[in-house]
Amino acid sequence: MTAPADALAITLAGEVGDLLRRQKKRLVTVESCTGGLIASRITDVPGSSDYFTAGLVVYANAAKTALAGVPESLLAEHGAVSEAVARAMAEGARSRTEADVAVATTGIAGPGGGSAAKPVGLVYVAVADEAGSVVGRHQFSGDRQAIKERAASAALGMLRDRLSGADPSF
Amino acid sequence: MTAPADALAITLAGEVGDLLRRQKKRLVTVESCTGGLIASRITDVPGSSDYFTAGLVVYANAAKTALAGVPESLLAEHGAVSEAVARAMAEGARSRTEADVAVATTGIAGPGGGSAAKPVGLVYVAVADEAGSVVGRHQFSGDRQAIKERAASAALGMLRDRLSGADPSF
Repeated sequence: MTAPADALAITLAGEVGDLLRRQKKRLVTVESCTGGLIASRITDVPGSSDYFTAGLVVYANAAKTALAGVPESLLAEHGAVSEAVARAMAEGARSRTEADVAVATTGIAGPGGGSAAKPVGLVYVAVADEAGSVVGRHQFSGDRQAIKERAASAALGMLRDRLSGADPSF
Repeated sequence: MTAPADALAITLAGEVGDLLRRQKKRLVTVESCTGGLIASRITDVPGSSDYFTAGLVVYANAAKTALAGVPESLLAEHGAVSEAVARAMAEGARSRTEADVAVATTGIAGPGGGSAAKPVGLVYVAVADEAGSVVGRHQFSGDRQAIKERAASAALGMLRDRLSGADPSF
């Protein structure tokens, strides 16, 4: 049952771990649509407690506000699945946990919850660090499990690119 | 790569979800050694946002204190992998997130970190609800991934038993 996207996430988690350890940086994850899958992939790597401090799974909007400090006004104005909320989740989790780097996901894993403007598979991924934050917008296909796995891989890939200096948008 | 224990966790997550929905109860997870795997299994179930409010992955001791309210003195006295800390994680997460039920894990997934007194595979699982809390002690075998999966299944099984009234220890 392991899809290629999942194997990719496992590989990426190891690469991210190596980069974090070398750079002596601590990571926090803050996940909505991936539901803890990124944290689980990160912690599949032996020794990940060296750089992984905490993970937040903020499924309800109230949890996004209470745990990651996302302003209610932002959720009301843009909706939970938006560039603004992805960025606020990453920046909020980073400042609240004193981590060096934060990665956030918010999206619609389906099968319900989609709309014409925000279809199933729409996922925003954000990375925040001392230099600022960046957000990527993705439209994934597949069932709920596949969308979770593809979003987790996209998040870990974005994190790796940022940590390795391959992301020119920072 | 899907082990039987993982298939079991997926089945259990569905059963737990059905019970939570029927009982109109909200769940919070607070994970150390399972690293987000319980939250990920819970959120594999479509519609889980109806009853899953938030998950905490409290890998560092500082995160156990800051996010789940585990007293530093408890960590110093008993160690992070202990019955007392498992119980404090579940009770703390439940009260801080206003969830009805909390499930917590703390253990040694390995391959490092074990000792004669607390070997690799030792995992405490706690469930807290309005009636109080209960803790189970497990000694799992296998590699890091297998221990994570077995601990997640044990936690989901304990949650199911509590929600279905099958746990006489409450």
